[in-house]
Amino acid sequence: MPTTAREVRLKSRPVGMPEASNFEVATVQVPDPGPGEVLVRNSWMSVDPYMRGRMYDRPSYVPPFALGEALQGGAVGTVVKSNDPKFAEGDLVDSMFGWREAFVAPAAALNKLPQTGVPAQAFLGVLGMPGMTAYSSFHRIGEPKAGDVVLVSAAGGAVGATVCQIAKIRGCTVVAMAGSDSKLDWLRTRGVDAGINYKVGNLLENVRAAAPKGIDIYFDNVGGEHLEVALEAARPFARFIECGMISIYNAKEPPAAPRNMAYIVGKRIKMQGFIVSDFIDMRDQFFAEMGQWVKEGRVKWEETVENGVDRAPQAFLNLFTGANTGKMLVKLD
Amino acid sequence: MPTTAREVRLKSRPVGMPEASNFEVATVQVPDPGPGEVLVRNSWMSVDPYMRGRMYDRPSYVPPFALGEALQGGAVGTVVKSNDPKFAEGDLVDSMFGWREAFVAPAAALNKLPQTGVPAQAFLGVLGMPGMTAYSSFHRIGEPKAGDVVLVSAAGGAVGATVCQIAKIRGCTVVAMAGSDSKLDWLRTRGVDAGINYKVGNLLENVRAAAPKGIDIYFDNVGGEHLEVALEAARPFARFIECGMISIYNAKEPPAAPRNMAYIVGKRIKMQGFIVSDFIDMRDQFFAEMGQWVKEGRVKWEETVENGVDRAPQAFLNLFTGANTGKMLVKLD
Repeated sequence: MPTTAREVRLKSRPVGMPEASNFEVATVQVPDPGPGEVLVRNSWMSVDPYMRGRMYDRPSYVPPFALGEALQGGAVGTVVKSNDPKFAEGDLVDSMFGWREAFVAPAAALNKLPQTGVPAQAFLGVLGMPGMTAYSSFHRIGEPKAGDVVLVSAAGGAVGATVCQIAKIRGCTVVAMAGSDSKLDWLRTRGVDAGINYKVGNLLENVRAAAPKGIDIYFDNVGGEHLEVALEAARPFARFIECGMISIYNAKEPPAAPRNMAYIVGKRIKMQGFIVSDFIDMRDQFFAEMGQWVKEGRVKWEETVENGVDRAPQAFLNLFTGANTGKMLVKLD
Repeated sequence: MPTTAREVRLKSRPVGMPEASNFEVATVQVPDPGPGEVLVRNSWMSVDPYMRGRMYDRPSYVPPFALGEALQGGAVGTVVKSNDPKFAEGDLVDSMFGWREAFVAPAAALNKLPQTGVPAQAFLGVLGMPGMTAYSSFHRIGEPKAGDVVLVSAAGGAVGATVCQIAKIRGCTVVAMAGSDSKLDWLRTRGVDAGINYKVGNLLENVRAAAPKGIDIYFDNVGGEHLEVALEAARPFARFIECGMISIYNAKEPPAAPRNMAYIVGKRIKMQGFIVSDFIDMRDQFFAEMGQWVKEGRVKWEETVENGVDRAPQAFLNLFTGANTGKMLVKLD
């Protein structure tokens, strides 16, 4: 018996800042699952900054989103009907089929999630892609040592807030940058040593005041001026973890910063980009260690939740105005 | 019996492009060597782009040059008189006392050089600091594999030309960028696969034509627009060896490039700065392997020679107009 589901499609490619009119909601028939297929009803959908990159029609590490199709992305849901022995009705699964209420997919495209008492949406956050992003790159590229000074940009976001807490567990001093005092207040409750509201005052002066001896690790989600400030504040042999550059994703003009790239030579900085899948070999270690930290309350998270599949575009737009604290999610009924 | 010697001093700090008036020649008395000291008469002095950085009065990895004192830098000379058992008259030595005809120094500040039949000035070039710079960073940061495509900037210079030849020995495809066709012609005789005169045509288009599948390693001596082009041409997981940024050393305004830093994330580029002393642990390996390559004629070099200590400032200024081919040297009588 086919069912219907709503999905959010990319209607047109944004130029500069995305707008609500770039998206449309459609209702589709979801067929019965065929042999080896599974019908899933999503309960949580992930809304992530990196999705902006896939809205451009250009070669990249993943293909661009297709116009007129549902946007792909992480989601957690429950198996409604399974024609594959690996899944049973009621199983919790995550998938990458994105912004839709329900879908049919081959069993191989789903991951079964442990039912551990951790809230299901954690598998889209600290125990999902953002958590793995933070955990893997902080260790692999950042090479942290106790006593290192770590500067984190977009520290109120899902990845940044996780980095801050891992860095504290590793014995580092953590300076967090975010766009609101309430985000910084929450980060201080998680042990962060200093918080800087980048919208207030001179960012470089504030970083220098918070880290007078300079920084050893910079976790970059922002690029542009933040990156320039980090280059200025870097100690010799600093490691720059290049996770994202949200400040320029929507830029129509090339950014004017950083203008101080020569520090990379003189300070012997290592600057390295990555995509979470590059560190897939760390997956088991991540689940074991992060799962333990979450259980013990050593890593916590905040989340910003919109309700209903049709709210996904607005949730996405809100990422670029900093309206979210922690993980941005859409909850489905 | 004291002797006299001429030396070149920094008279004033350059603003932007250095000028002859920033330097002055003085004649000084060189005393007899005391106990444990050695009197050296220089035969070759090194002239290097990195010296520009030490002309600024600012904190860096080495202290700035002092006004009114001889400029420090590499030199090769002969022991005239020794009051230390480790050195005898006629020994060939290198030192860092720079632009002066003769000097007295503690024995510990000198390195005795092997008299192997290799011309003495090679110890300021392929077998000296520029050679070690090329050798150590190309292996340690570049992590070359046979088949990699290597793009080299300032490939006609002492470091760049050495990188090109090492890369060929390692089985790489080498694309060299330089500012004159004669430099590129010489590099082609050394096995370089493609040469690009960056002063002619569109640099990015020319790099794409020479390396249609992109580049795996970029050896950066230049920064600015060259770096932007390299980011554009980079393949996933490319390594950027950040040796220098001569295009911006004299800049009064911050550079307008690179404007495409976001590629560091998407292409997972590793960009790393260094100073040759960071890799001092590779010194024995360097002398053994490079010495062999020089002996076998697998690594060769060109040099541009000015005669007389008073020509050192002009030799230095010529570095910034690309007037040198290969290692820039001053020969003393």
